[in-house]
Amino acid sequence: MSTLPNRIGLQLPQVEEAGATIICFEGGEIVSGLRPIAAEVPVALTFGGIPFAVMMTTPSDLEDFAVGFSLTEGIIQRADDIRSVQLEQEERGLRLVIDLIPERLHEHLARKRALSGRTGCGLCGIDDLDALPKARMPVGRAPSIPLTSIRTALSMLEGAQSLNALTRAVHAAAWADLDGTVHCVREDVGRHNALDKLIGALCRDGTNPNSGFVIVTSRCSFELVEKIAAFGTRTLVAISAPTSLALERARLLDITLVGIARSDAVTVFHGVERICRQDVQHEH
Amino acid sequence: MSTLPNRIGLQLPQVEEAGATIICFEGGEIVSGLRPIAAEVPVALTFGGIPFAVMMTTPSDLEDFAVGFSLTEGIIQRADDIRSVQLEQEERGLRLVIDLIPERLHEHLARKRALSGRTGCGLCGIDDLDALPKARMPVGRAPSIPLTSIRTALSMLEGAQSLNALTRAVHAAAWADLDGTVHCVREDVGRHNALDKLIGALCRDGTNPNSGFVIVTSRCSFELVEKIAAFGTRTLVAISAPTSLALERARLLDITLVGIARSDAVTVFHGVERICRQDVQHEH
Repeated sequence: MSTLPNRIGLQLPQVEEAGATIICFEGGEIVSGLRPIAAEVPVALTFGGIPFAVMMTTPSDLEDFAVGFSLTEGIIQRADDIRSVQLEQEERGLRLVIDLIPERLHEHLARKRALSGRTGCGLCGIDDLDALPKARMPVGRAPSIPLTSIRTALSMLEGAQSLNALTRAVHAAAWADLDGTVHCVREDVGRHNALDKLIGALCRDGTNPNSGFVIVTSRCSFELVEKIAAFGTRTLVAISAPTSLALERARLLDITLVGIARSDAVTVFHGVERICRQDVQHEH
Repeated sequence: MSTLPNRIGLQLPQVEEAGATIICFEGGEIVSGLRPIAAEVPVALTFGGIPFAVMMTTPSDLEDFAVGFSLTEGIIQRADDIRSVQLEQEERGLRLVIDLIPERLHEHLARKRALSGRTGCGLCGIDDLDALPKARMPVGRAPSIPLTSIRTALSMLEGAQSLNALTRAVHAAAWADLDGTVHCVREDVGRHNALDKLIGALCRDGTNPNSGFVIVTSRCSFELVEKIAAFGTRTLVAISAPTSLALERARLLDITLVGIARSDAVTVFHGVERICRQDVQHEH
């Protein structure tokens, strides 16, 4: 279990306070009004006081984001490697001040000197092919997932994307147990961030990475596969289809990859032997 | 008009050659088969032989990508600033070797020394808030756009996303004239890349940036607004809603911003005075 406080200082609106005055043309009708707009805020992350990256985020669940980002970037191995997270408001955005335990901080600073510029998506900031990230092999056993659980989770998630229902501009990442019950949803203007927030939340709760599966509402590129592997989860369900590199990584890491997921049809791209058609007994 | 050759060396498959063996569960049916997978390939861009960034791309229209990326990154001001683009295949990916005219190369190298790590999306690679990009004011006059043209363009685009029809994993950016006729579509696994490819193609063709409008199939974050502003276009139509920062930039730059665009309804977030309900006479 994480020792981080549950809430960090500031309460930040996830939608722009005023909303935007819009005119909607629908069929022959013209409707004008105010519409909530998803807040998009630059967040600078610092470790040991040294700037590491700026990410554009939805300013919610930023403590989860701090933990998840640190984990998927390989800076920490568990939530306890972070001693505290402070959130500061600056003129141009927010700052997440992350205080690592000494061992992790030393490792991080040594690596930062060796490889400048690696940031958020695991790729931008890399300036040559030699610096491409390598997949990390997750250790846990991949669970069998009943097809009905994927359907249940997709239906539950649809009703749980509260910010997207308002703004139509954000992605979601969610955690469902093997029965398909959705336990955690995180939303963000960035799909990488939504997943980092989810992983941070799971990591802080001490969730067993193979007691369920991850669902993302976005397309499935290789970074998302890498991120769930960094947490140790072996099952990813995506609304869109995977790219070639995402599929290659899923095969390499033997991650069950389900794509083009709708409540009435799913396509299994890897690990079909772990998708079961009837509800089966499974270990929790 | 650009002096670049129309085709660079390699012919690259946009879908993985073998396809992926998939199992699809649809209702009570199980269908297995091969499915085309969108190729996702790391492309390193070099200027003057010096690595600048690695982007994950769909390996199509890479000459357009080279031009568009260089323009939206502020490295060139027009297509003619590039003398040649070579594409090289390496073990780990592709390399776009971009040869700038001496003036631009000198500027680029001076800037690269001053600001290390700025890359693709215009934000990743930035490690502190002070380095956030500033919007560039486009110079052209924003055209009036008939509502019917937006509808026409959306319908045409739907049928023109050939790679997405196959793979369900790529974004599109398109150019439509003021009548709504779509003249150019570019697809990519990355939404920033799709727009960079489109802008590169328009730039090379000598298209007047305000003789039409840009449509993107993705959500609308601030980088997309910045990119069209860098090309000089003053109208952006997005399938999703804009984020707060995208809207802020659109207001600042007075860019007509249409979101949540469907063939039967659109929402105007900025510049409604330039959306006309009847077909009007307009200058070409």
